[in-house]
Amino acid sequence: MHKKLNDRTEILVRFNEADPLGIVWHGHYIRYFEDGRESFGEKYGIRYLDFYKEGFVVPIVQIQCDYKRSVRYGERVIVETQYNPCEAAKLKFSYRLFNAETNELVATGSTVQVFLDKTNSVLQLTNPVFFEHWKKKHVL
Amino acid sequence: MHKKLNDRTEILVRFNEADPLGIVWHGHYIRYFEDGRESFGEKYGIRYLDFYKEGFVVPIVQIQCDYKRSVRYGERVIVETQYNPCEAAKLKFSYRLFNAETNELVATGSTVQVFLDKTNSVLQLTNPVFFEHWKKKHVL
Amino acid sequence: MHKKLNDRTEILVRFNEADPLGIVWHGHYIRYFEDGRESFGEKYGIRYLDFYKEGFVVPIVQIQCDYKRSVRYGERVIVETQYNPCEAAKLKFSYRLFNAETNELVATGSTVQVFLDKTNSVLQLTNPVFFEHWKKKHVL
Amino acid sequence: MHKKLNDRTEILVRFNEADPLGIVWHGHYIRYFEDGRESFGEKYGIRYLDFYKEGFVVPIVQIQCDYKRSVRYGERVIVETQYNPCEAAKLKFSYRLFNAETNELVATGSTVQVFLDKTNSVLQLTNPVFFEHWKKKHVL
Repeated sequence: MHKKLNDRTEILVRFNEADPLGIVWHGHYIRYFEDGRESFGEKYGIRYLDFYKEGFVVPIVQIQCDYKRSVRYGERVIVETQYNPCEAAKLKFSYRLFNAETNELVATGSTVQVFLDKTNSVLQLTNPVFFEHWKKKHVL
Repeated sequence: MHKKLNDRTEILVRFNEADPLGIVWHGHYIRYFEDGRESFGEKYGIRYLDFYKEGFVVPIVQIQCDYKRSVRYGERVIVETQYNPCEAAKLKFSYRLFNAETNELVATGSTVQVFLDKTNSVLQLTNPVFFEHWKKKHVL
Repeated sequence: MHKKLNDRTEILVRFNEADPLGIVWHGHYIRYFEDGRESFGEKYGIRYLDFYKEGFVVPIVQIQCDYKRSVRYGERVIVETQYNPCEAAKLKFSYRLFNAETNELVATGSTVQVFLDKTNSVLQLTNPVFFEHWKKKHVL
Repeated sequence: MHKKLNDRTEILVRFNEADPLGIVWHGHYIRYFEDGRESFGEKYGIRYLDFYKEGFVVPIVQIQCDYKRSVRYGERVIVETQYNPCEAAKLKFSYRLFNAETNELVATGSTVQVFLDKTNSVLQLTNPVFFEHWKKKHVL
Protein backbone atom coordinates (compact mmCIF):
# COMPACT_ATOMS: atom_id res chain seq x y z
CA MET A 1 0.00 0.00 0.00
CA HIS A 2 1.16 3.48 -0.80
CA LYS A 3 2.24 5.86 1.89
CA LYS A 4 0.70 9.30 1.54
CA LEU A 5 2.92 12.33 1.79
CA ASN A 6 1.62 15.48 3.41
CA ASP A 7 2.64 19.05 4.02
CA ARG A 8 0.97 21.80 6.01
CA THR A 9 1.78 25.45 5.52
CA GLU A 10 0.17 28.61 6.81
CA ILE A 11 -0.68 31.63 4.70
CA LEU A 12 -2.00 35.05 5.61
CA VAL A 13 -4.92 36.38 3.57
CA ARG A 14 -3.74 39.58 1.89
CA PHE A 15 -5.80 42.76 1.79
CA ASN A 16 -5.68 42.76 -2.01
CA GLU A 17 -7.12 39.25 -2.17
CA ALA A 18 -10.23 40.29 -0.31
CA ASP A 19 -12.77 43.07 -0.16
CA PRO A 20 -12.85 45.49 2.81
CA LEU A 21 -15.58 43.36 4.42
CA GLY A 22 -13.28 41.00 3.32
CA ILE A 23 -14.32 37.91 1.42
CA VAL A 24 -11.56 36.36 -0.64
CA TRP A 25 -12.39 36.10 -4.35
CA HIS A 26 -12.70 32.42 -5.32
CA GLY A 27 -9.97 32.61 -7.95
CA HIS A 28 -7.33 33.31 -5.31
CA TYR A 29 -7.76 29.83 -3.84
CA ILE A 30 -5.90 28.61 -6.93
CA ARG A 31 -2.92 30.61 -5.67
CA TYR A 32 -3.26 29.04 -2.24
CA PHE A 33 -3.13 25.60 -3.84
CA GLU A 34 0.08 26.67 -5.55
CA ASP A 35 1.45 27.95 -2.25
CA GLY A 36 0.68 24.53 -0.79
CA ARG A 37 2.29 22.70 -3.70
CA GLU A 38 5.42 24.83 -3.41
CA SER A 39 5.67 24.23 0.32
CA PHE A 40 5.24 20.49 -0.28
CA GLY A 41 7.82 20.67 -3.06
CA GLU A 42 10.31 22.45 -0.83
CA LYS A 43 9.88 19.82 1.89
CA TYR A 44 10.24 16.85 -0.47
CA GLY A 45 12.50 18.24 -3.18
CA ILE A 46 10.05 18.60 -6.03
CA ARG A 47 9.44 22.30 -6.54
CA TYR A 48 8.81 23.67 -10.05
CA LEU A 49 12.50 24.61 -10.12
CA ASP A 50 13.55 21.04 -9.31
CA PHE A 51 11.51 19.67 -12.19
CA TYR A 52 12.94 22.36 -14.43
CA LYS A 53 16.52 21.46 -13.53
CA GLU A 54 15.71 17.85 -14.46
CA GLY A 55 14.48 18.99 -17.86
CA PHE A 56 10.73 19.13 -17.35
CA VAL A 57 7.89 21.53 -16.94
CA VAL A 58 4.80 20.31 -15.15
CA PRO A 59 1.71 22.25 -16.27
CA ILE A 60 -1.64 21.87 -14.58
CA VAL A 61 -4.11 19.99 -16.81
CA GLN A 62 -6.97 19.70 -14.37
CA ILE A 63 -8.08 21.66 -11.35
CA GLN A 64 -11.09 21.40 -9.10
CA CYS A 65 -12.17 23.25 -5.97
CA ASP A 66 -15.12 22.99 -3.58
CA TYR A 67 -15.71 26.05 -1.46
CA LYS A 68 -17.10 25.38 2.02
CA ARG A 69 -16.67 28.62 3.91
CA SER A 70 -15.51 32.13 3.10
CA VAL A 71 -12.14 33.42 4.22
CA ARG A 72 -11.50 37.00 5.24
CA TYR A 73 -8.69 39.50 5.05
CA GLY A 74 -6.39 39.12 8.05
CA GLU A 75 -7.27 35.49 8.70
CA ARG A 76 -4.68 32.76 8.51
CA VAL A 77 -5.30 29.69 6.41
CA ILE A 78 -3.66 26.29 6.72
CA VAL A 79 -3.05 24.68 3.33
CA GLU A 80 -2.72 20.90 3.66
CA THR A 81 -1.26 19.39 0.51
CA GLN A 82 -1.23 15.66 -0.12
CA TYR A 83 0.56 13.81 -2.90
CA ASN A 84 -1.57 10.99 -4.32
CA PRO A 85 0.53 8.37 -6.08
CA CYS A 86 -0.71 6.98 -9.38
CA GLU A 87 0.63 4.68 -12.07
CA ALA A 88 0.25 7.17 -14.90
CA ALA A 89 2.89 9.78 -15.72
CA LYS A 90 1.01 12.38 -13.74
CA LEU A 91 1.33 14.40 -10.56
CA LYS A 92 -1.81 14.31 -8.45
CA PHE A 93 -2.26 16.50 -5.43
CA SER A 94 -5.25 17.07 -3.20
CA TYR A 95 -5.73 20.04 -0.89
CA ARG A 96 -7.62 20.89 2.24
CA LEU A 97 -7.78 24.47 3.46
CA PHE A 98 -8.56 25.20 7.09
CA ASN A 99 -9.17 28.38 9.02
CA ALA A 100 -6.06 28.44 11.22
CA GLU A 101 -7.93 29.80 14.21
CA THR A 102 -11.16 27.82 14.19
CA ASN A 103 -9.87 24.74 12.39
CA GLU A 104 -12.99 24.79 10.21
CA LEU A 105 -12.65 23.29 6.74
CA VAL A 106 -12.64 26.17 4.26
CA ALA A 107 -12.17 24.36 0.94
CA THR A 108 -11.06 21.13 -0.67
CA GLY A 109 -9.57 20.64 -4.10
CA SER A 110 -7.28 18.74 -6.38
CA THR A 111 -4.90 19.22 -9.29
CA VAL A 112 -3.40 17.02 -11.96
CA GLN A 113 -0.12 17.85 -13.69
CA VAL A 114 1.72 16.24 -16.57
CA PHE A 115 5.38 16.15 -17.55
CA LEU A 116 6.53 17.99 -20.65
CA ASP A 117 10.08 18.04 -21.98
CA LYS A 118 11.13 21.62 -21.32
CA THR A 119 12.95 22.02 -24.63
CA ASN A 120 10.31 20.72 -27.04
CA SER A 121 7.14 20.55 -24.90
CA VAL A 122 6.65 16.86 -25.73
CA LEU A 123 4.26 15.10 -23.35
CA GLN A 124 5.94 12.31 -21.38
CA LEU A 125 3.96 9.07 -21.45
CA THR A 126 6.02 7.46 -18.72
CA ASN A 127 7.37 8.94 -15.53
CA PRO A 128 10.79 10.60 -15.90
CA VAL A 129 13.56 8.48 -14.34
CA PHE A 130 14.38 11.01 -11.63
CA PHE A 131 10.74 11.07 -10.60
CA GLU A 132 10.59 7.25 -10.40
CA HIS A 133 13.55 7.53 -8.02
CA TRP A 134 11.75 10.18 -6.03
CA LYS A 135 8.67 7.98 -5.74
CA LYS A 136 10.74 4.95 -4.64
CA LYS A 137 12.43 7.02 -2.01
CA HIS A 138 9.41 8.82 -0.63
CA VAL A 139 6.27 6.91 -1.42
CA LEU A 140 6.67 3.18 -1.92
CA MET B 1 -36.86 19.74 -22.72
CA HIS B 2 -34.82 22.66 -21.56
CA LYS B 3 -33.47 25.18 -23.98
CA LYS B 4 -29.81 25.95 -23.42
CA LEU B 5 -28.69 29.56 -23.30
CA ASN B 6 -25.33 30.53 -24.69
CA ASP B 7 -23.05 33.50 -24.95
CA ARG B 8 -19.76 33.97 -26.76
CA THR B 9 -17.34 36.74 -25.91
CA GLU B 10 -13.79 37.44 -26.99
CA ILE B 11 -10.96 38.37 -24.67
CA LEU B 12 -7.39 39.42 -25.31
CA VAL B 13 -4.68 37.70 -23.29
CA ARG B 14 -2.89 40.40 -21.29
CA PHE B 15 0.88 40.63 -21.01
CA ASN B 16 0.65 40.41 -17.23
CA GLU B 17 -1.33 37.16 -17.43
CA ALA B 18 1.45 35.44 -19.33
CA ASP B 19 5.17 35.01 -19.33
CA PRO B 20 7.32 36.56 -22.09
CA LEU B 21 7.31 33.24 -23.95
CA GLY B 22 4.09 33.68 -23.01
CA ILE B 23 2.05 30.91 -21.46
CA VAL B 24 -0.91 32.03 -19.40
CA TRP B 25 -0.79 30.89 -15.77
CA HIS B 26 -3.58 28.37 -15.14
CA GLY B 27 -5.18 30.44 -12.39
CA HIS B 28 -6.08 33.20 -14.83
CA TYR B 29 -8.55 30.93 -16.62
CA ILE B 30 -10.77 31.41 -13.58
CA ARG B 31 -10.89 35.09 -14.53
CA TYR B 32 -11.79 34.18 -18.09
CA PHE B 33 -14.70 32.10 -16.80
CA GLU B 34 -15.84 35.15 -14.86
CA ASP B 35 -15.49 37.31 -17.98
CA GLY B 36 -17.70 34.78 -19.76
CA ARG B 37 -20.27 34.73 -16.96
CA GLU B 38 -20.40 38.52 -16.94
CA SER B 39 -20.87 38.69 -20.69
CA PHE B 40 -23.63 36.07 -20.43
CA GLY B 41 -25.16 38.01 -17.54
CA GLU B 42 -25.13 41.24 -19.50
CA LYS B 43 -26.86 39.57 -22.44
CA TYR B 44 -29.55 37.89 -20.34
CA GLY B 45 -29.91 40.31 -17.43
CA ILE B 46 -28.27 38.31 -14.66
CA ARG B 47 -24.97 39.97 -13.86
CA TYR B 48 -23.67 39.98 -10.28
CA LEU B 49 -25.10 43.49 -9.97
CA ASP B 50 -28.55 42.29 -11.04
CA PHE B 51 -28.56 39.59 -8.37
CA TYR B 52 -27.36 42.14 -5.85
CA LYS B 53 -30.17 44.56 -6.68
CA GLU B 54 -32.62 41.71 -6.10
CA GLY B 55 -31.12 41.09 -2.68
CA PHE B 56 -28.75 38.22 -3.31
CA VAL B 57 -25.10 37.40 -3.64
CA VAL B 58 -24.17 34.34 -5.67
CA PRO B 59 -20.82 32.93 -4.51
CA ILE B 60 -19.05 30.17 -6.37
CA VAL B 61 -19.18 26.90 -4.41
CA GLN B 62 -17.59 24.65 -6.99
CA ILE B 63 -15.23 25.18 -9.87
CA GLN B 64 -13.52 22.82 -12.26
CA CYS B 65 -11.26 23.30 -15.26
CA ASP B 66 -9.61 20.99 -17.79
CA TYR B 67 -6.71 22.51 -19.68
CA LYS B 68 -6.28 21.29 -23.25
CA ARG B 69 -3.86 23.72 -24.84
CA SER B 70 -1.79 26.66 -23.67
CA VAL B 71 -2.72 30.24 -24.51
CA ARG B 72 -0.19 32.95 -25.18
CA TYR B 73 0.13 36.66 -24.67
CA GLY B 74 -1.40 38.54 -27.60
CA GLU B 75 -3.76 35.75 -28.59
CA ARG B 76 -7.50 36.18 -28.53
CA VAL B 77 -9.68 33.67 -26.74
CA ILE B 78 -13.38 33.00 -27.27
CA VAL B 79 -15.18 32.24 -24.01
CA GLU B 80 -18.38 30.29 -24.65
CA THR B 81 -20.60 30.28 -21.59
CA GLN B 82 -23.64 28.06 -21.29
CA TYR B 83 -26.30 28.14 -18.60
CA ASN B 84 -27.34 24.66 -17.52
CA PRO B 85 -30.80 24.63 -15.92
CA CYS B 86 -31.30 22.53 -12.79
CA GLU B 87 -34.06 22.00 -10.25
CA ALA B 88 -31.96 22.94 -7.23
CA ALA B 89 -31.49 26.54 -6.08
CA LYS B 90 -28.19 26.73 -7.91
CA LEU B 91 -26.62 28.47 -10.88
CA LYS B 92 -24.73 26.08 -13.12
CA PHE B 93 -22.56 27.27 -15.97
CA SER B 94 -20.24 25.40 -18.27
CA TYR B 95 -17.48 26.98 -20.33
CA ARG B 96 -15.53 26.24 -23.45
CA LEU B 97 -12.52 28.34 -24.36
CA PHE B 98 -11.31 28.47 -27.94
CA ASN B 99 -8.31 30.02 -29.61
CA ALA B 100 -10.01 32.75 -31.65
CA GLU B 101 -7.68 32.31 -34.58
CA THR B 102 -7.34 28.54 -34.88
CA ASN B 103 -10.66 27.59 -33.29
CA GLU B 104 -8.85 24.95 -31.25
CA LEU B 105 -10.40 24.03 -27.93
CA VAL B 106 -8.22 25.53 -25.20
CA ALA B 107 -10.08 24.54 -22.05
CA THR B 108 -13.40 23.38 -20.67
CA GLY B 109 -14.83 23.99 -17.24
CA SER B 110 -17.82 24.50 -15.04
CA THR B 111 -18.98 26.45 -12.01
CA VAL B 112 -21.76 26.11 -9.46
CA GLN B 113 -23.12 29.09 -7.54
CA VAL B 114 -25.65 29.35 -4.72
CA PHE B 115 -27.94 32.14 -3.60
CA LEU B 116 -27.29 33.91 -0.31
CA ASP B 117 -29.44 36.65 1.16
CA LYS B 118 -27.16 39.68 0.86
CA THR B 119 -28.09 41.10 4.26
CA ASN B 120 -27.65 38.01 6.45
CA SER B 121 -25.79 35.56 4.16
CA VAL B 122 -28.49 32.90 4.66
CA LEU B 123 -28.37 30.15 2.03
CA GLN B 124 -31.53 30.01 -0.10
CA LEU B 125 -32.92 26.48 -0.40
CA THR B 126 -35.35 27.41 -3.16
CA ASN B 127 -34.84 29.64 -6.15
CA PRO B 128 -35.56 33.33 -5.50
CA VAL B 129 -38.85 34.42 -7.12
CA PHE B 130 -37.18 36.81 -9.56
CA PHE B 131 -34.93 34.01 -10.73
CA GLU B 132 -37.88 31.66 -11.27
CA HIS B 133 -39.33 34.37 -13.50
CA TRP B 134 -36.03 34.67 -15.32
CA LYS B 135 -35.96 30.93 -15.93
CA LYS B 136 -39.57 30.87 -17.18
CA LYS B 137 -38.79 33.68 -19.56
CA HIS B 138 -35.51 32.42 -20.91
CA VAL B 139 -35.20 28.72 -20.41
CA LEU B 140 -38.44 26.78 -20.17
CA MET C 1 8.10 70.93 -31.65
CA HIS C 2 7.13 67.39 -30.99
CA LYS C 3 3.73 66.07 -31.89
CA LYS C 4 2.12 64.11 -29.10
CA LEU C 5 0.58 60.74 -29.90
CA ASN C 6 -2.53 59.64 -28.09
CA ASP C 7 -4.75 56.62 -27.77
CA ARG C 8 -8.02 56.15 -25.93
CA THR C 9 -9.37 52.74 -25.01
CA GLU C 10 -12.24 51.63 -22.83
CA ILE C 11 -12.04 48.93 -20.21
CA LEU C 12 -14.70 47.33 -18.03
CA VAL C 13 -13.91 47.00 -14.32
CA ARG C 14 -13.96 43.29 -13.51
CA PHE C 15 -15.72 41.88 -10.47
CA ASN C 16 -12.48 40.30 -9.29
CA GLU C 17 -10.69 43.67 -9.39
CA ALA C 18 -13.13 45.19 -6.94
CA ASP C 19 -14.88 44.41 -3.72
CA PRO C 20 -18.64 43.74 -3.67
CA LEU C 21 -19.26 47.38 -2.71
CA GLY C 22 -16.94 47.60 -5.24
CA ILE C 23 -13.85 49.79 -4.98
CA VAL C 24 -11.00 48.74 -7.24
CA TRP C 25 -7.78 47.90 -5.39
CA HIS C 26 -5.11 50.48 -6.23
CA GLY C 27 -2.68 47.92 -7.61
CA HIS C 28 -5.02 47.08 -10.48
CA TYR C 29 -4.56 50.54 -11.99
CA ILE C 30 -1.10 49.34 -13.02
CA ARG C 31 -2.90 46.77 -15.20
CA TYR C 32 -5.07 49.51 -16.67
CA PHE C 33 -1.93 51.46 -17.61
CA GLU C 34 -0.69 48.33 -19.36
CA ASP C 35 -4.01 47.94 -21.14
CA GLY C 36 -3.62 51.52 -22.31
CA ARG C 37 -0.04 50.97 -23.43
CA GLU C 38 -1.04 47.87 -25.37
CA SER C 39 -3.90 49.67 -27.07
CA PHE C 40 -1.52 52.50 -27.97
CA GLY C 41 1.02 49.96 -29.18
CA GLU C 42 -1.54 48.22 -31.35
CA LYS C 43 -2.56 51.51 -32.93
CA TYR C 44 1.00 52.67 -33.61
CA GLY C 45 2.83 49.39 -34.09
CA ILE C 46 4.84 49.24 -30.88
CA ARG C 47 3.33 46.52 -28.75
CA TYR C 48 5.59 44.43 -26.50
CA LEU C 49 5.54 41.79 -29.23
CA ASP C 50 6.76 44.31 -31.81
CA PHE C 51 9.72 45.26 -29.64
CA TYR C 52 10.43 41.58 -29.05
CA LYS C 53 10.47 40.82 -32.76
CA GLU C 54 13.00 43.63 -33.18
CA GLY C 55 15.21 42.06 -30.54
CA PHE C 56 14.32 44.03 -27.44
CA VAL C 57 12.46 43.81 -24.22
CA VAL C 58 11.23 47.03 -22.66
CA PRO C 59 10.90 46.67 -18.89
CA ILE C 60 9.31 49.33 -16.73
CA VAL C 61 11.91 51.13 -14.62
CA GLN C 62 9.67 53.78 -13.09
CA ILE C 63 5.97 54.03 -12.40
CA GLN C 64 3.87 56.64 -10.68
CA CYS C 65 0.14 57.00 -10.07
CA ASP C 66 -2.08 59.63 -8.47
CA TYR C 67 -5.53 58.43 -7.47
CA LYS C 68 -8.28 61.02 -7.73
CA ARG C 69 -11.51 59.05 -7.45
CA SER C 70 -12.46 55.45 -6.79
CA VAL C 71 -13.72 53.19 -9.54
CA ARG C 72 -16.34 50.54 -9.02
CA TYR C 73 -17.17 47.12 -10.37
CA GLY C 74 -19.32 47.41 -13.49
CA GLU C 75 -18.11 50.87 -14.39
CA ARG C 76 -16.29 51.58 -17.62
CA VAL C 77 -13.00 53.43 -17.59
CA ILE C 78 -11.37 55.31 -20.44
CA VAL C 79 -7.61 54.93 -20.46
CA GLU C 80 -5.93 57.78 -22.34
CA THR C 81 -2.32 56.97 -23.12
CA GLN C 82 0.11 59.56 -24.41
CA TYR C 83 3.62 58.99 -25.73
CA ASN C 84 6.02 61.66 -24.54
CA PRO C 85 9.09 61.93 -26.78
CA CYS C 86 12.48 62.31 -25.14
CA GLU C 87 16.10 62.34 -26.28
CA ALA C 88 17.22 59.49 -24.03
CA ALA C 89 16.85 55.83 -24.97
CA LYS C 90 13.65 55.58 -23.00
CA LEU C 91 9.95 55.12 -23.56
CA LYS C 92 7.86 57.60 -21.62
CA PHE C 93 4.10 57.36 -21.40
CA SER C 94 1.61 59.31 -19.38
CA TYR C 95 -1.92 58.19 -18.58
CA ARG C 96 -5.23 59.72 -17.67
CA LEU C 97 -8.10 57.53 -16.54
CA PHE C 98 -11.66 58.79 -16.82
CA ASN C 99 -14.97 57.42 -15.67
CA ALA C 100 -16.57 56.66 -19.05
CA GLU C 101 -20.02 57.73 -17.92
CA THR C 102 -19.33 60.88 -15.92
CA ASN C 103 -16.08 61.89 -17.64
CA GLU C 104 -14.57 62.57 -14.23
CA LEU C 105 -10.82 62.19 -13.94
CA VAL C 106 -10.13 59.01 -11.98
CA ALA C 107 -6.34 58.86 -11.98
CA THR C 108 -3.21 60.14 -13.65
CA GLY C 109 0.12 58.41 -13.96
CA SER C 110 3.29 57.80 -15.90
CA THR C 111 5.77 55.09 -16.76
CA VAL C 112 9.34 54.97 -18.01
CA GLN C 113 10.72 51.97 -19.90
CA VAL C 114 14.20 51.14 -21.13
CA PHE C 115 15.46 48.97 -23.97
CA LEU C 116 17.29 45.74 -23.19
CA ASP C 117 18.78 43.39 -25.76
CA LYS C 118 16.49 40.37 -25.48
CA THR C 119 19.31 37.84 -25.77
CA ASN C 120 21.75 39.21 -23.20
CA SER C 121 19.70 41.80 -21.28
CA VAL C 122 22.22 44.54 -22.02
CA LEU C 123 20.83 48.04 -21.49
CA GLN C 124 20.74 50.10 -24.69
CA LEU C 125 22.23 53.57 -24.23
CA THR C 126 20.94 54.84 -27.56
CA ASN C 127 17.58 54.28 -29.21
CA PRO C 128 17.41 51.13 -31.35
CA VAL C 129 17.43 51.96 -35.07
CA PHE C 130 13.91 50.66 -35.69
CA PHE C 131 12.64 52.88 -32.90
CA GLU C 132 14.39 55.94 -34.33
CA HIS C 133 12.53 55.18 -37.56
CA TRP C 134 9.30 54.85 -35.66
CA LYS C 135 9.83 58.22 -33.99
CA LYS C 136 10.65 59.90 -37.30
CA LYS C 137 7.51 58.51 -38.83
CA HIS C 138 5.12 59.22 -36.01
CA VAL C 139 6.46 61.97 -33.83
CA LEU C 140 8.84 64.40 -35.43
CA MET D 1 13.65 65.67 15.35
CA HIS D 2 11.40 62.84 14.32
CA LYS D 3 12.34 59.25 14.95
CA LYS D 4 11.85 57.05 11.92
CA LEU D 5 10.05 53.75 12.35
CA ASN D 6 11.11 50.76 10.33
CA ASP D 7 10.05 47.20 9.66
CA ARG D 8 11.70 44.46 7.64
CA THR D 9 9.82 41.44 6.37
CA GLU D 10 10.76 38.67 3.99
CA ILE D 11 8.60 37.44 1.16
CA LEU D 12 9.00 34.56 -1.26
CA VAL D 13 8.43 35.31 -4.95
CA ARG D 14 5.51 33.13 -6.08
CA PHE D 15 5.56 31.14 -9.30
CA ASN D 16 2.42 32.92 -10.48
CA GLU D 17 4.04 36.33 -10.01
CA ALA D 18 6.83 35.50 -12.43
CA ASP D 19 7.40 33.91 -15.77
CA PRO D 20 9.15 30.51 -16.03
CA LEU D 21 12.44 32.29 -16.70
CA GLY D 22 11.09 34.05 -14.10
CA ILE D 23 11.01 37.83 -14.02
CA VAL D 24 8.38 39.28 -11.73
CA TRP D 25 5.85 41.51 -13.52
CA HIS D 26 6.28 45.11 -12.33
CA GLY D 27 2.72 45.41 -11.07
CA HIS D 28 3.33 42.80 -8.38
CA TYR D 29 5.75 45.10 -6.56
CA ILE D 30 2.67 47.05 -5.50
CA ARG D 31 1.59 43.91 -3.63
CA TYR D 32 5.03 43.68 -2.03
CA PHE D 33 4.68 47.25 -0.77
CA GLU D 34 1.34 46.25 0.74
CA ASP D 35 2.95 43.20 2.33
CA GLY D 36 5.54 45.54 3.84
CA ARG D 37 2.89 47.99 5.07
CA GLU D 38 0.94 45.18 6.66
CA SER D 39 4.02 43.81 8.39
CA PHE D 40 4.82 47.30 9.64
CA GLY D 41 1.21 47.72 10.73
CA GLU D 42 1.26 44.46 12.65
CA LYS D 43 4.45 45.47 14.46
CA TYR D 44 3.21 48.95 15.39
CA GLY D 45 -0.54 48.42 15.65
CA ILE D 46 -1.74 50.22 12.55
CA ARG D 47 -2.92 47.57 10.13
CA TYR D 48 -5.85 48.30 7.80
CA LEU D 49 -8.03 46.46 10.30
CA ASP D 50 -6.87 48.71 13.14
CA PHE D 51 -7.80 51.83 11.18
CA TYR D 52 -11.13 50.25 10.32
CA LYS D 53 -11.93 49.52 13.95
CA GLU D 54 -11.23 53.18 14.71
CA GLY D 55 -13.70 54.24 12.04
CA PHE D 56 -11.45 54.96 9.09
CA VAL D 57 -10.38 53.60 5.77
CA VAL D 58 -6.99 54.68 4.44
CA PRO D 59 -6.93 54.53 0.64
CA ILE D 60 -3.75 55.03 -1.34
CA VAL D 61 -3.77 58.37 -3.19
CA GLN D 62 -0.26 58.27 -4.56
CA ILE D 63 2.20 55.54 -5.40
CA GLN D 64 5.62 55.56 -6.97
CA CYS D 65 8.17 52.85 -7.71
CA ASP D 66 11.69 52.80 -9.17
CA TYR D 67 12.83 49.42 -10.43
CA LYS D 68 16.54 48.73 -10.07
CA ARG D 69 16.91 44.99 -10.65
CA SER D 70 14.65 42.15 -11.66
CA VAL D 71 13.47 39.56 -9.17
CA ARG D 72 12.94 35.93 -10.02
CA TYR D 73 10.65 33.13 -9.02
CA GLY D 74 12.02 31.31 -5.98
CA GLU D 75 14.04 34.26 -4.73
CA ARG D 76 13.39 35.85 -1.38
CA VAL D 77 12.89 39.58 -1.11
CA ILE D 78 13.30 41.77 1.96
CA VAL D 79 10.72 44.54 2.11
CA GLU D 80 11.92 47.41 4.30
CA THR D 81 9.06 49.74 5.17
CA GLN D 82 9.60 53.12 6.77
CA TYR D 83 7.00 55.46 8.19
CA ASN D 84 7.73 59.10 7.34
CA PRO D 85 6.02 61.51 9.72
CA CYS D 86 4.33 64.59 8.29
CA GLU D 87 2.14 67.39 9.57
CA ALA D 88 -0.70 66.77 7.13
CA ALA D 89 -3.46 64.23 7.75
CA LYS D 90 -1.65 61.70 5.63
CA LEU D 91 0.19 58.41 5.98
CA LYS D 92 3.51 58.39 4.17
CA PHE D 93 5.59 55.26 3.76
CA SER D 94 8.74 54.61 1.81
CA TYR D 95 9.99 51.19 0.77
CA ARG D 96 13.25 49.54 -0.12
CA LEU D 97 13.27 46.04 -1.58
CA PHE D 98 16.40 43.92 -1.36
CA ASN D 99 17.35 40.55 -2.76
CA ALA D 100 17.53 38.53 0.47
CA GLU D 101 20.51 36.52 -0.69
CA THR D 102 22.72 39.12 -2.37
CA ASN D 103 21.48 42.18 -0.43
CA GLU D 104 21.29 44.08 -3.71
CA LEU D 105 18.74 46.87 -3.88
CA VAL D 106 15.87 45.70 -6.08
CA ALA D 107 13.47 48.64 -5.94
CA THR D 108 12.54 51.75 -4.02
CA GLY D 109 9.14 53.34 -3.71
CA SER D 110 6.67 55.35 -1.70
CA THR D 111 2.98 55.62 -0.98
CA VAL D 112 0.68 58.30 0.41
CA GLN D 113 -2.62 57.46 2.10
CA VAL D 114 -5.43 59.64 3.42
CA PHE D 115 -8.04 59.10 6.11
CA LEU D 116 -11.69 58.70 5.13
CA ASP D 117 -14.56 58.26 7.56
CA LYS D 118 -15.61 54.66 6.91
CA THR D 119 -19.33 55.38 7.12
CA ASN D 120 -19.59 58.37 4.79
CA SER D 121 -16.22 58.43 2.99
CA VAL D 122 -15.56 62.01 4.09
CA LEU D 123 -11.91 63.04 3.79
CA GLN D 124 -10.35 63.92 7.15
CA LEU D 125 -8.47 67.21 7.06
CA THR D 126 -6.83 66.65 10.44
CA ASN D 127 -5.32 63.52 11.86
CA PRO D 128 -7.82 61.31 13.72
CA VAL D 129 -7.34 61.51 17.49
CA PHE D 130 -6.27 57.88 17.84
CA PHE D 131 -3.62 58.43 15.20
CA GLU D 132 -2.28 61.52 16.98
CA HIS D 133 -1.90 59.30 20.05
CA TRP D 134 -0.15 56.69 17.97
CA LYS D 135 2.28 59.29 16.63
CA LYS D 136 3.00 60.66 20.11
CA LYS D 137 3.71 57.17 21.36
CA HIS D 138 5.84 55.94 18.52
CA VAL D 139 7.32 58.83 16.61
CA LEU D 140 7.78 62.04 18.56
